[in-house]
Amino acid sequence: MSGNSIGKLFTVTTFGESHGPAMGCIVDGCPPGLPLSEADLQQDVDRRRTGTSHFVSQRREADEVRILSGVFEGRTTGTPIGLLIENTDARSRDYERLRDRFRPGHADYTYQQKYGVRDHRGGGRSSARETVMRTAAGAIARRYLAMRLNVRIYGYLSQVGSLALEPVDPAFAYQNPFFCPDPQRVKEIEELIWKVRGAGDSIGARVTVVASGVPPGLGEPVFDRLDADIAHALMSINAVKGVEIGAGMAVAELSGEENADEMRMGNQGAKFMSNHAGGILGGISTGQPVVVRFAVKPTSSILTPRRTIDRGGQETEIMTKGRHDPCVGIRAVPVGEAMMACVLADHFLRHRGQVGR
Amino acid sequence: MSGNSIGKLFTVTTFGESHGPAMGCIVDGCPPGLPLSEADLQQDVDRRRTGTSHFVSQRREADEVRILSGVFEGRTTGTPIGLLIENTDARSRDYERLRDRFRPGHADYTYQQKYGVRDHRGGGRSSARETVMRTAAGAIARRYLAMRLNVRIYGYLSQVGSLALEPVDPAFAYQNPFFCPDPQRVKEIEELIWKVRGAGDSIGARVTVVASGVPPGLGEPVFDRLDADIAHALMSINAVKGVEIGAGMAVAELSGEENADEMRMGNQGAKFMSNHAGGILGGISTGQPVVVRFAVKPTSSILTPRRTIDRGGQETEIMTKGRHDPCVGIRAVPVGEAMMACVLADHFLRHRGQVGR
Amino acid sequence: MSGNSIGKLFTVTTFGESHGPAMGCIVDGCPPGLPLSEADLQQDVDRRRTGTSHFVSQRREADEVRILSGVFEGRTTGTPIGLLIENTDARSRDYERLRDRFRPGHADYTYQQKYGVRDHRGGGRSSARETVMRTAAGAIARRYLAMRLNVRIYGYLSQVGSLALEPVDPAFAYQNPFFCPDPQRVKEIEELIWKVRGAGDSIGARVTVVASGVPPGLGEPVFDRLDADIAHALMSINAVKGVEIGAGMAVAELSGEENADEMRMGNQGAKFMSNHAGGILGGISTGQPVVVRFAVKPTSSILTPRRTIDRGGQETEIMTKGRHDPCVGIRAVPVGEAMMACVLADHFLRHRGQVGR
Amino acid sequence: MSGNSIGKLFTVTTFGESHGPAMGCIVDGCPPGLPLSEADLQQDVDRRRTGTSHFVSQRREADEVRILSGVFEGRTTGTPIGLLIENTDARSRDYERLRDRFRPGHADYTYQQKYGVRDHRGGGRSSARETVMRTAAGAIARRYLAMRLNVRIYGYLSQVGSLALEPVDPAFAYQNPFFCPDPQRVKEIEELIWKVRGAGDSIGARVTVVASGVPPGLGEPVFDRLDADIAHALMSINAVKGVEIGAGMAVAELSGEENADEMRMGNQGAKFMSNHAGGILGGISTGQPVVVRFAVKPTSSILTPRRTIDRGGQETEIMTKGRHDPCVGIRAVPVGEAMMACVLADHFLRHRGQVGR
Repeated sequence: MSGNSIGKLFTVTTFGESHGPAMGCIVDGCPPGLPLSEADLQQDVDRRRTGTSHFVSQRREADEVRILSGVFEGRTTGTPIGLLIENTDARSRDYERLRDRFRPGHADYTYQQKYGVRDHRGGGRSSARETVMRTAAGAIARRYLAMRLNVRIYGYLSQVGSLALEPVDPAFAYQNPFFCPDPQRVKEIEELIWKVRGAGDSIGARVTVVASGVPPGLGEPVFDRLDADIAHALMSINAVKGVEIGAGMAVAELSGEENADEMRMGNQGAKFMSNHAGGILGGISTGQPVVVRFAVKPTSSILTPRRTIDRGGQETEIMTKGRHDPCVGIRAVPVGEAMMACVLADHFLRHRGQVGR
Repeated sequence: MSGNSIGKLFTVTTFGESHGPAMGCIVDGCPPGLPLSEADLQQDVDRRRTGTSHFVSQRREADEVRILSGVFEGRTTGTPIGLLIENTDARSRDYERLRDRFRPGHADYTYQQKYGVRDHRGGGRSSARETVMRTAAGAIARRYLAMRLNVRIYGYLSQVGSLALEPVDPAFAYQNPFFCPDPQRVKEIEELIWKVRGAGDSIGARVTVVASGVPPGLGEPVFDRLDADIAHALMSINAVKGVEIGAGMAVAELSGEENADEMRMGNQGAKFMSNHAGGILGGISTGQPVVVRFAVKPTSSILTPRRTIDRGGQETEIMTKGRHDPCVGIRAVPVGEAMMACVLADHFLRHRGQVGR
Repeated sequence: MSGNSIGKLFTVTTFGESHGPAMGCIVDGCPPGLPLSEADLQQDVDRRRTGTSHFVSQRREADEVRILSGVFEGRTTGTPIGLLIENTDARSRDYERLRDRFRPGHADYTYQQKYGVRDHRGGGRSSARETVMRTAAGAIARRYLAMRLNVRIYGYLSQVGSLALEPVDPAFAYQNPFFCPDPQRVKEIEELIWKVRGAGDSIGARVTVVASGVPPGLGEPVFDRLDADIAHALMSINAVKGVEIGAGMAVAELSGEENADEMRMGNQGAKFMSNHAGGILGGISTGQPVVVRFAVKPTSSILTPRRTIDRGGQETEIMTKGRHDPCVGIRAVPVGEAMMACVLADHFLRHRGQVGR
Repeated sequence: MSGNSIGKLFTVTTFGESHGPAMGCIVDGCPPGLPLSEADLQQDVDRRRTGTSHFVSQRREADEVRILSGVFEGRTTGTPIGLLIENTDARSRDYERLRDRFRPGHADYTYQQKYGVRDHRGGGRSSARETVMRTAAGAIARRYLAMRLNVRIYGYLSQVGSLALEPVDPAFAYQNPFFCPDPQRVKEIEELIWKVRGAGDSIGARVTVVASGVPPGLGEPVFDRLDADIAHALMSINAVKGVEIGAGMAVAELSGEENADEMRMGNQGAKFMSNHAGGILGGISTGQPVVVRFAVKPTSSILTPRRTIDRGGQETEIMTKGRHDPCVGIRAVPVGEAMMACVLADHFLRHRGQVGR
């Protein structure tokens, strides 16, 4: 299949441009019998929504998800689930100046190079708006994992600029506009974002996503390792430049003795004494929480003039006036959770297919 | 296809256990007409080979690659290329003690959990020996990219333990057993490895891989972005725990102004003033060098006794006596290059398929 | 990907139930730059439409296709094309009696067995209504093939009941409600259909589809032969029970001497003296017209009472009162053309990917 | 994945040319724990073997299958199974005259057109020798289906030339060199084959394959219907030109009343009164035997001179002197069984993945 699909058994295919009539997706392969309503999806979509606070893009979309197929009398039927969200607040004239000029650090230039044509309005297909369908699809995966396996997936902002955040209270991450997991640090983030915004600039971030309750055995070495598929899914989110599993890039400095998670017997089977592995060994889940982290670059749509070129090959400058997030990484939290859910659901079905339990 | 295949048009499928009769792979979809001989593959396989120095595992394999199909009168025919390397130096008795005990930090436990059965000898399928076929397959991809597009791929060790290495002379990386890109630092690495080895311990590393000459336009958003597929391929290598593109995890601390690579016109078209993007924007190659980094954990096969459990659920200890690398990250350099080559070849063919140039 | 997608580079994924809110699909991988409007799709969709005559199902759908993405300023952009058709004339109460009883010869029983749940209204996902999206997607493929390669695809009814029809005038097939290619035989077909309809019964048919102008070289042996992929695509259409390429099932009675199409040189290269091969040798197109035939069974939704069972395992009878085609095979003509177009477009891109021309 | 792979969860990838050093394949995704030895595979391979009688090609290959991975202590481990058969009796000089001339009705011309290069020796990749790996891979699928589900697959020759054969005694098909299912007709076939052979000609055939014990629920509408995937798999066998499920092409002449298989309750659930559907409704297995038929064209490698052209575009004649089957359709019986087994195994795993039972 072509590049807008992900997953082998739990397959998500998306379409939609930022300023086109609608965003949509098809979730194919979902197990039958799952209780599912539009409200179940809306919840996750709303968490991601543009405009929930002053701190993210001021575009205001209702983002109302419609289920067009695959659900009958409140349950999934096993047939493909069609989802649709209409775009209602696209102001394309804001983008007219981007028709011919490439924003540095943005996909404008590469889309033009690849396809020879592009929908420049609002970034077209490369807009972060695309991720709205990921959260809708992910909500289905997440619901299945929760109801069938009791898997819980939660994410939080773990760094923004130079502020590193500890998961003091992960549940709190769902109660503030920054997905900050530490009640004591919200004020600092707020100040940082205001400052960045005031300067017409933007800032990067890191996001952590944790899945607990994942059964051991998920993942298909050697290429479709669970961690490899998670890395693929997270790196496919707009603006992500790095992905870490467990101890991540820091393993370079660890010794074998430090890194190997020792095992003992607990009440319910094997128990690990630490989790440097991030819940994955040899590409297969261990039963420990799966822990991943990814970094999101600062958006390149900023008010500061930057040197660039235009389609005709002339040197020029550009300054982006549209409505943008000072920190796109914040909104990436629910998107990262959604991608984690999709990969885990897919691998649960794949494992069940091959091994039968 | 199942988990032992990678790539959509340039497809690599591998098989083989560490102590089975042979390792093998099928490269399907290779363009016809490429000059190719066994010697072309042997070169890359040899770079990876166990036993080239005292510093890596002492297992000595001839690693002779045979081409069994797909090449006729010195050129590829477009039909699948079968490759085979026989295992000749497997000493399985070394591993008898691993039959029932799980090495902490190793795939022993997860394979057993997933499949209910495993070939424990030498780690079976989870052994790093599996990567030998990656280098053989990658050599074909690399050769195609070099001859057709003049793409050059080179890798080097960029960190081992706390020693960070700069690419002072990337060509030098091919002339020393550590793939160290800085002639002044070899001595330090050597001392570190001896020390780790003497302690019966192991150490992690980071590897950098660069591909220059990559044409703009490769990559298929939104899910099969070039960076997402590279992340998948690199994270699928044994022991890798993190992958970064361009500025990587550090983007969290950058501002939009710092991060966006400005553009000017050069003699041959667009020219970027910096490369925080690592040659990829919006999931599509920019024409700049593609720069990736990955971290390899220290092997968990160490001489220090570690607490673990056995298959019967009893707590016990384990100490691994086989022949192992003090730093598996070193040998990951040619493997990382091979994976980069496979992904780029696949995306070149995919792009040509859709866009026709 | 899961079962509702077809094609590797030119990929079509569909969703939608007969009585749900809408039918939809995503065409991913379409080359950029193709001139495309909703009117271009509507033409093919209209040919298939229910209710164009008294002879097919009396359900009346506007079948208005909307393009939701992937087209900008009248040209495809290379990003996924989302298509949507709303269902407007679904009368679900007609089907209430089918909730618990299985129509013999219909998918009612197997959907229930597979998924444990089904949308029984109008056959749900198993309804022939599903094929409307195939024609819309196929129209894109067909347009690309015509504009890029000058490939022409045409189909016609080649048999209905015991009436065998010769392609006396293939263009005429587009000018009568039966897709009959012989102006002299329309009257006979009309009489047969009225008779079948009057008896509350239905009748089978055969359809021929021809693609001329197909360049030599398309198809990927050994498994993804062009003929194998065409057979897959045609057999995936509702009610199809047989597929033949060229001489088809009759090859059993031919000798090697009779069957082998001899070759001479023509003005523009190789010329075949006959076409038993149906334009495909060794799974690769020869440059001759690709000729396929498929058989469509009579619908099992008939007025005659038939013995069956219900969901509770009780024996009962059933008689289907909804609005149905006396001969679903007629409407399969544009659907067959659409599937042929999708497979050829996919293989053209695949071939271009691997071989580069 | 590229064209030499088939199956999504139970995936088979093959390589090998007729006169290359070896034929091989990788079976990926096989469930763990299946008892398996080389002897289990050899049995099916031997049934297909060249040279078992005077009636098929006189090439004599030992066809010894080696298992190179994926089996440990007599059981599959869930990792990929590598299989290899060395070519030992290739007489390439017989084919030197084919280097530049295209056999009419053979893949010589199309391979040359597609790839611009080909291994002409013995037909290279397009040789029927390729099917030897299909039987080996199919033997694994068949064994799994038999042991896990009690599915039995048997095939027989159902027509050769104008001789139509009834399955009077399907078990007898395994006891004569023609796979003839009727003890009374062997003599006739023998005479026909001798006659065809004596004339330096060849003849077509039809093969029937039946799978009993298939559970209801296998198949993934709308595109990956069970029948669509079977049609793909059978049409991918060399020289096959038509595939029929159940009543097949003849459904064109049936009425809805005749065609619909009525249902009653039997001792073990639903019972069908007939099997026009060939065990598949709506693309999903019904629980009845799956019945398919395919037609194999007569080989074009015959002794009669035929008009053709050469690579330089000159008109010439050709007469094929190598060792060939007068009726390749005979040997297609075990190959058809193997493909049926692969598709059913794949769909059993896919169904279990999505639905969990």
